[in-house]
Amino acid sequence: MKPIRAGLLGLGTVGTGVVRIVEGHQEDLQRQVGSPIEIRKILVKDKTKAREIPVDPAKLTEDPWEIIHDPDIDILIEVMGGVEPTKEYLLAALESGKQVVTANKDLMALYGQEIMAKAREKGCDVFFEASVAGGIPIIRTLIESFSSDRITKITGIVNGTTNYILTKMSQEGAAYEAVLKEAQALGYAEADPTSDVDGLDAARKMAILATLGFRTPVALEDVDVRGIRSVTQEDIRFAKQLGYELKLLGIAERDENDLISVSVQPTMIRKSHPLASVSGVFNAVCVYGEAVGETMFYGPGAGQLPTATSVVADLVAAAKNMKLGVSGKWAVAPYREKKLKTDEQIASKFFLLLHVEDRAGVLAQIARVFADFGVSIESVMQPSSGDSSGCADLIIITHHAAKAAFGAVAGRLESLEVVRKVKSVYRVEG
Amino acid sequence: MKPIRAGLLGLGTVGTGVVRIVEGHQEDLQRQVGSPIEIRKILVKDKTKAREIPVDPAKLTEDPWEIIHDPDIDILIEVMGGVEPTKEYLLAALESGKQVVTANKDLMALYGQEIMAKAREKGCDVFFEASVAGGIPIIRTLIESFSSDRITKITGIVNGTTNYILTKMSQEGAAYEAVLKEAQALGYAEADPTSDVDGLDAARKMAILATLGFRTPVALEDVDVRGIRSVTQEDIRFAKQLGYELKLLGIAERDENDLISVSVQPTMIRKSHPLASVSGVFNAVCVYGEAVGETMFYGPGAGQLPTATSVVADLVAAAKNMKLGVSGKWAVAPYREKKLKTDEQIASKFFLLLHVEDRAGVLAQIARVFADFGVSIESVMQPSSGDSSGCADLIIITHHAAKAAFGAVAGRLESLEVVRKVKSVYRVEG
Repeated sequence: MKPIRAGLLGLGTVGTGVVRIVEGHQEDLQRQVGSPIEIRKILVKDKTKAREIPVDPAKLTEDPWEIIHDPDIDILIEVMGGVEPTKEYLLAALESGKQVVTANKDLMALYGQEIMAKAREKGCDVFFEASVAGGIPIIRTLIESFSSDRITKITGIVNGTTNYILTKMSQEGAAYEAVLKEAQALGYAEADPTSDVDGLDAARKMAILATLGFRTPVALEDVDVRGIRSVTQEDIRFAKQLGYELKLLGIAERDENDLISVSVQPTMIRKSHPLASVSGVFNAVCVYGEAVGETMFYGPGAGQLPTATSVVADLVAAAKNMKLGVSGKWAVAPYREKKLKTDEQIASKFFLLLHVEDRAGVLAQIARVFADFGVSIESVMQPSSGDSSGCADLIIITHHAAKAAFGAVAGRLESLEVVRKVKSVYRVEG
Repeated sequence: MKPIRAGLLGLGTVGTGVVRIVEGHQEDLQRQVGSPIEIRKILVKDKTKAREIPVDPAKLTEDPWEIIHDPDIDILIEVMGGVEPTKEYLLAALESGKQVVTANKDLMALYGQEIMAKAREKGCDVFFEASVAGGIPIIRTLIESFSSDRITKITGIVNGTTNYILTKMSQEGAAYEAVLKEAQALGYAEADPTSDVDGLDAARKMAILATLGFRTPVALEDVDVRGIRSVTQEDIRFAKQLGYELKLLGIAERDENDLISVSVQPTMIRKSHPLASVSGVFNAVCVYGEAVGETMFYGPGAGQLPTATSVVADLVAAAKNMKLGVSGKWAVAPYREKKLKTDEQIASKFFLLLHVEDRAGVLAQIARVFADFGVSIESVMQPSSGDSSGCADLIIITHHAAKAAFGAVAGRLESLEVVRKVKSVYRVEG
C-alpha cells in the first residue's frame, strides 16, 4: 500500500511530539486514512545535535527546499514557527501542490488570508488546529460543528502563560514579578515574555477565531490589546472580594448588524462563570451561537503532546482529503465585509479603582462626573476606611456603558482634585 | 443552481428547530455547501394540526414512504424518535442511496452498528451528532479531532433531566420527589421519568461515546447502570461537606490492555473538577487522551435550537460530502475486539454511609472487614454523635479498590450486628 508521505519542518518540542504520535499510533492512523503515514524528511537546524527521540539520520536535512521541492512529499507539516522565512516555505509548498498542516498562530494571524487564498488557487488544504489553544479542537468546531449557527460571541482564555501567572497571583497572593520569574524558571514563560504578558499572543489567536467564527477577515491590528503587566495583587484581591476572578480574556463580539469588536484585556469574570475556574496553563474558549446558546471547550493550551495531537489530527484530515480527491474544499473564505465597532458602540460593564480623599461630598463629585457622561453606576464600595493621609480606596462598578463614555469619565476623574489616582480600570464580564 | 433536497421525518420540537435554522441561516448554509438546501417534504402525524411555524401544507405528508421513496430527496433527516418503525425507515432510505442525519440516540445505541454497516455497503453517510449531548459537538470531536490520539477515558454528564434534579437537590436542599415533580411541571422531565432517572438515557449515550472513543462496538447491555432514585438529601449534604458534588456520571474507561468498562451511576465528584460545576440541564463530556491529556466540552444538552444546530451541521456535512462525491467515507467502523473488565478488574474509590452502633470497638470490627477483603480505607468520618437509639452515621471513603472486593465488604457489613444499615454506596471520582 502506497504510504502518505509527509515532510516535517522543525523538530523542536511539537515536532518531536508529532514524530512520537505518528510512530506510536501508526496502526490507528492507518485504519483511518487507509494507508500508512510516513514522515519522510525532517528539517532541523543542526543535523548533528542529540535528539530526545531516535530519528533515522538519513531523514534529517538542514535545507528546507530539499523537502519543499521533493515531489514525493504530499503533505508539509510546519512546526518551526516564525513568520519569515516560514511564510515563503508554506507558499512554495502550496504552489507545488502540497497540502499544509501548520501550528503557526503568528503566521496564520498575519498572513492567514494570503495563505488560504494560495491554497484555494492550488486546490490544496491548509489545516491549522494547533495554532489556537493547543489540544482543544476549537478551529474544527467553529468551521464544521457550528456551520449551521450564527455565532455572536467568542470569549477565551487562550494564553497559558498569562493564565498561569494570574492563577498563581490569585491563589497564592504572590506579586506579578515574582510569579513571572517562577513561570520563566518552569519554562511556562519565555526569557522575553513580551508576546505573552502584553497580550499579543492572545490577540493573534483571537484574530484567527473571530475570522472563522464571524466569517469576516479580522486582522491583528483590529484587535484592541492590553496585557497583564499592570495587574496588581490589590486588583486581584478586590476582584475576589466582589465575586470575580481576573483573567486575560479575549472577547470577540458581533451584533445583529454584523458590527464586530475584538479585544484582549484583563477582565473581571464572575466566579460562577465556567471560564473563571480555568486555572494554570489550561485554555478554554466559550462560543455563543444564536441557536446553540452557550458552549465551552476546555483543555491544555500548549505542551508537546496536546499540540502534536492537533497537528496529527490535521495530518489525518489532510491525508483523507487527498485520498478522496477533495483537497481544498474544507474552509470557506471569509465572505462578510468587516465593519468594526467604534468606541461609542462597544459597551460593557466596567470596574474602577480610585484613590480618593476620604471626606463628605467626594462621592457626590465623582457621581456627578459619571452622570455628566451618561454612565450609570451599579455599585460603589469603600473597601477600608481612610489612611493617615486622609485618603481611601473607592471601587465603582458601572452598568453597561459605552467604552468611549467610560473613557471620558476616567479621564475627567483624573483631573478632579479629590481623586488622587485612578488606580485600575477593568472590563467586567458575566 | 440545483438545490440539495432533504426530507424531514418529524416536526416536533427538534424538527421545528431544523426548519427554523435551515430557513433562517439559508445564506450562510449556501455559502458553505455551494447550493441552496431545501426541505422538500416533512413527515407529520396529522397534517391538519396547527404548527408553531408557518409551513407550506403541500410539503406535509403522513406517509413516510412518500419521502423515503422520493428519488428527488438526497438526504433523510430523522428527528421523529423511537426505535421501531424508525429503524426500518432509515435502513430503507440508505438502501435507496440516501444520506441520513439522525438525532436518535436510542436507535444509534441499539442498532448503530447495523445502520452504519448498511451505510458503508451503500456508500452513504450516517451523521448523528445530535444523538448525544444536544448542542455539544462531541461526536465529531471524537471521530475527527482526536483521530490521532489514544483515548483512555470518557466521563460525562449526558442527561439534563437528572442533572437538573441533582443540581436543585444540591442548591436548594429539596427532596428528590419534590424536585422531580417540579421538573415534570417545567417540561424538563417526562410524565414517565424512568428512562432519565434510571440512567437508561445516559447509558445509551455512553454506549455511543465509548464505541467511537475506543473504536470498539460497545452495546447498551455492556453498560452497568444505576439511576438516581435512591439518592437522598442526606447523601448530597454529606458529599458537599466532604468537598464533593453528587452527579449522575457516565464513565467509560480503557486500560493499557484495551480492557474496557462502561458505567452510569451517581458519583461523588471533587468540587475542583470541572464537571462538578456543570449545573441544571447543561451537559458536559470530559475526554482523556494519552497525548492530549484532559479536555472538556460543555454546552446545552437538549432544547430545540441547540439540538437542531447539531442536526443542521450534520446536514451541511452530508450535503458537502454528496457534492464532493465522498459520501460513506467519514466514519471508521469499530475495529477493536470488545474485552470487558470484570468486577475484579474495575477499580475506583468508594464512599460508604453506614448507620452503626455508637460505641467503642465498632470501628475496629468494621475496619477488620475492609482488611479481610484487602480494601484500604482513606478516611473515616462520624458526622454527628449518636442519637437516642445509641446509633450514629459513619462515612468511610476507600482508596482505589476493586468493585468486587468493595461489594463483598458492603455485603459482609450488612450482616454485622453493629451495623444497623448500609445507607448509601457511591463511586468517588477526581
